[in-house]
Amino acid sequence: MPTYNAPMENIKFVLNDVLKAEQLTKIPGYEEATPELVEQILEEGAKLCENVLFPLNMVGDAEGCSLKDGVVTTPTGFKEAYKEFTEGGWTGVSGDPEYGGMGLPMLVNTVMQEMICSANFSFGMYPGLSQGAYEALHHYGTDEQKKTYLPKLLTGEWSGTMCLTEPHCGTDLGLMRTKAIPEGDGFKITGTKIYISAGEHDMTNNIIHLVLARLPDAPEGVKGISLFVVPKYLPEDMSRNGIVCGSLEHKMGINGNATCVMNLDEAKGWLVGEPHKGLKAMFTMMNAARLGVAMQGLGIAEVSYQNALAYAKDRLQMRALDGAKAPDKPADPIIVHPDIRRMLLTSKAFCEGARAMSYWIGMNLDISIKHPDEGVRQAADDLVALMTPVLKAYQTDMGFEVASLAIQTHGGAGYTKDYGVEQYARDARIAMIYEGTNGIQALDLVGRKMGAHIGRYLRRFFHPLSAYIEEHQANSDLQEFIFPLAKSFAKLQQSTAIIAQKGLKNPVEAGAASVNYLRQFALVAMGYMWVQMAQAAQEKINEGGHGKSEFYEAKIKTARFFFARMLPEADWHFKAVMAGAESLMEMDVDQF
Amino acid sequence: MPTYNAPMENIKFVLNDVLKAEQLTKIPGYEEATPELVEQILEEGAKLCENVLFPLNMVGDAEGCSLKDGVVTTPTGFKEAYKEFTEGGWTGVSGDPEYGGMGLPMLVNTVMQEMICSANFSFGMYPGLSQGAYEALHHYGTDEQKKTYLPKLLTGEWSGTMCLTEPHCGTDLGLMRTKAIPEGDGFKITGTKIYISAGEHDMTNNIIHLVLARLPDAPEGVKGISLFVVPKYLPEDMSRNGIVCGSLEHKMGINGNATCVMNLDEAKGWLVGEPHKGLKAMFTMMNAARLGVAMQGLGIAEVSYQNALAYAKDRLQMRALDGAKAPDKPADPIIVHPDIRRMLLTSKAFCEGARAMSYWIGMNLDISIKHPDEGVRQAADDLVALMTPVLKAYQTDMGFEVASLAIQTHGGAGYTKDYGVEQYARDARIAMIYEGTNGIQALDLVGRKMGAHIGRYLRRFFHPLSAYIEEHQANSDLQEFIFPLAKSFAKLQQSTAIIAQKGLKNPVEAGAASVNYLRQFALVAMGYMWVQMAQAAQEKINEGGHGKSEFYEAKIKTARFFFARMLPEADWHFKAVMAGAESLMEMDVDQF
Repeated sequence: MPTYNAPMENIKFVLNDVLKAEQLTKIPGYEEATPELVEQILEEGAKLCENVLFPLNMVGDAEGCSLKDGVVTTPTGFKEAYKEFTEGGWTGVSGDPEYGGMGLPMLVNTVMQEMICSANFSFGMYPGLSQGAYEALHHYGTDEQKKTYLPKLLTGEWSGTMCLTEPHCGTDLGLMRTKAIPEGDGFKITGTKIYISAGEHDMTNNIIHLVLARLPDAPEGVKGISLFVVPKYLPEDMSRNGIVCGSLEHKMGINGNATCVMNLDEAKGWLVGEPHKGLKAMFTMMNAARLGVAMQGLGIAEVSYQNALAYAKDRLQMRALDGAKAPDKPADPIIVHPDIRRMLLTSKAFCEGARAMSYWIGMNLDISIKHPDEGVRQAADDLVALMTPVLKAYQTDMGFEVASLAIQTHGGAGYTKDYGVEQYARDARIAMIYEGTNGIQALDLVGRKMGAHIGRYLRRFFHPLSAYIEEHQANSDLQEFIFPLAKSFAKLQQSTAIIAQKGLKNPVEAGAASVNYLRQFALVAMGYMWVQMAQAAQEKINEGGHGKSEFYEAKIKTARFFFARMLPEADWHFKAVMAGAESLMEMDVDQF
Repeated sequence: MPTYNAPMENIKFVLNDVLKAEQLTKIPGYEEATPELVEQILEEGAKLCENVLFPLNMVGDAEGCSLKDGVVTTPTGFKEAYKEFTEGGWTGVSGDPEYGGMGLPMLVNTVMQEMICSANFSFGMYPGLSQGAYEALHHYGTDEQKKTYLPKLLTGEWSGTMCLTEPHCGTDLGLMRTKAIPEGDGFKITGTKIYISAGEHDMTNNIIHLVLARLPDAPEGVKGISLFVVPKYLPEDMSRNGIVCGSLEHKMGINGNATCVMNLDEAKGWLVGEPHKGLKAMFTMMNAARLGVAMQGLGIAEVSYQNALAYAKDRLQMRALDGAKAPDKPADPIIVHPDIRRMLLTSKAFCEGARAMSYWIGMNLDISIKHPDEGVRQAADDLVALMTPVLKAYQTDMGFEVASLAIQTHGGAGYTKDYGVEQYARDARIAMIYEGTNGIQALDLVGRKMGAHIGRYLRRFFHPLSAYIEEHQANSDLQEFIFPLAKSFAKLQQSTAIIAQKGLKNPVEAGAASVNYLRQFALVAMGYMWVQMAQAAQEKINEGGHGKSEFYEAKIKTARFFFARMLPEADWHFKAVMAGAESLMEMDVDQF
């Protein structure tokens, strides 16, 4: 049976020793979010994830959801777990206190997202989708809408969805056909939406759909899309609205989550934000959702790693190549074998590096929203905007990769359903697709983010990294890391320049470079995280180790692995970027 | 609904234009295997795969196998399809004519394996396992055993299995516990075997198990393992033997294949080959099986690619970055987008390169068995031995990768069960594990193959590649390929030398380099294939194109893509090899 233990030591290391997240207490509204309080809350959250959500993970996969007479039944135990989840206040952790939220930093929520996804990916999507609906209404809703919906979304009595996709329109929202016709104080909305996660279920007594649709006078394309709030039950009298689940998708994974076709037949809805400006509001939901998806990648990687590690310590097979390590046993545990270690260290280095990167961006999200200094807010906002596609794509690619490594570490056992790791791979695979495929993330990076404000977003990352390298290049403890980091950063600057230069003339060049560039970017960012973690660990060791020398030494060893074995991947992507678009574009369609 | 069309043009290009497989007709016994005959046979095989096996692929996944009262029922249609398969003679294509086989080159069988796995991976395993049993009995069986079993295996009336793994012993066969006690003219065998593919089913009227077990006087470890033939029904009177299916595994994929726990309770068996020399016979089965598994990787990649391509031509979404390509439609087909092309070209370049590589080795297998000149036989045998782990590991890694790219190309649709591509990924995943995990393949390469006979195996690959580069470096048509190939080959020689040097002192160094080295090796080998394909295509173009100029041009363009975008991956692995073992090994077990 699989195991999951929330990695509290690692979480605290990143929050306290690497990011010094205590700085958030200086921001008005976050004064109480001391390391002690945050730790206490996270410990509670960890218990919930370990003891309530995780035991339901395989059940959810095996049972899936079922639809009968328009009613979706979630897997055994999900409803009760959701009740416990809401009673603990977890749906409102970072919610606005004005509407009943706890008002804790988004960073706390980011950490919780990781743990929830480790414990039960499918379950986590139910409250996860509510957050997107909450964000959209909180930013763009009228006072009345906020009062009507936000409190119930924060208590978790109601849940939310994002209704974007239609059969013929996924990435290309400009093709949208769902229509909204004015009626009374609102609109009558008609159309079909697909792939609606948590679109219908039995865990809450109402579901608040955020629906994109076209007004009758809408211009063509994405400039004619508006956002509407369409509740399953109308708040005024709790009468049933005309939005129903037509069918459930059968999928590779996330079986515990209901993925619905939603049919709207003159469903009553109200405009959220301005007419025809729905895309802007949608991106508010989407950016929050993309960071959430990045956490899914990390969460699934962490639980995959933990199970691969447990198996590698337990499974006895062959002797170590340089002689028996457990001569009293019939064979050595497979963790003695170099390639098993390569797989485990790849997983460990990813999880810990991605955790630092995610929490760093999570903290900047808080700064971007609440810092009293506008310049500081703007800088943080730029950084979040730049890094969101990088985190979403890289962390979900690696979530799937690490889950696959966990299967490989288990050998044949990993391919069976008994050990649970094959489920992680199946669940993880969706995160590379939804909330914008990873190819779309890469286009966002090179198309929108890279050139924005003459490179201002990029500088929010490049400048501190340059400064860090300059400041620490003489630090003998860090030289083994600073040197390869500086080299890989130089190549990243080179590929950035090439894309900027070629892409200006021909956007196809930027598109052709995009996915490789994003990966190169992510690896350099991971290097930046790893050198900072090595530095923080070294400082603790220099202070005597605080009784955890082994833990800090492991950080430095993992950093070494990252720089020796993982960062060199960036060179491949550098070369692919430099190769240009021609080899992608010269093939005629009929020659494929 | 998914589609599959046997890639006959591509198959013929490799056989006829690149490998000049007609040379096999000069080998006694293969005189009749002319290109015309081979083509005719393959066309028949293609029809069977497209029209009979492929339509059952999704059915097999959805239904799976079931066990009741010791009887395994295969999915709807499998039994009938197997009957058609045997009636067509496909179980005996490359079988020894002395026992009723068609005596065609193994190469024909290799091509068939690819097509069968594209069409229906799970189905293909039933006859595939029979081949392993056939090989073992053909090589090591007594005349009596051969007469008893081989004809029925070749007609397909009986099927075969390989019973190796036990719960506590997978890779480490030395831990085996199954016991064989002499009785009468044979042995009584008792033990439990797991993960037995096609261990029990309803498609044949007997199942011939090749079982590894220990004799009472067996030395410990792998030197005390013997091979036995254990039929489900005893051939003398067709009475039921004591080998029964205890349960079926629930797996990530290959649901159409019955993966059985087999319980042997004093099952009657007969020794195959010498006592305690079972491992050698097992490797005879295993090497054939490993090439078969390599074909599974290619087969699943090919069908994944075909479906991704069809979707990419059909699905309309967004406009091309440099302006509309299909202005009459609401959006352009997604094949106009550079990153969709990157995914498709990666898949195409892999499939076509791997096909050339596989058939090249398949042809050498024939030469190694039947060529009249002993020196030629030996050289071919060495090359097959060297390349078998490379093909098995690289092609199955990429089979999974290409299936995953097909999901990504489909977006959300790829994650649903409707389009069939998610099944390809689930099915493909097993091939990285069974018949020796890909990590074990890499150890085989650096441990057994690299150093064998003071590098003789290696020279069978390095020397022709060196000669090719030297011969063609002045060929202006090929220079764009020869130059990067020569560079990557130089690095491969460098990493080979480092592993040989360090590995001699410390086998851990070889182990730590192994998986990266194998991948580097495979990429260089693919480069060697691609330059030869470009050469063959260029020659055809120079001859006027034979009415297929577009086809030949596409080969050259795909070669360009491979060298620009895929071969640079080898540099990453080169750097990982050069980084040495330390970063893998310095971490204490408790520090993970």
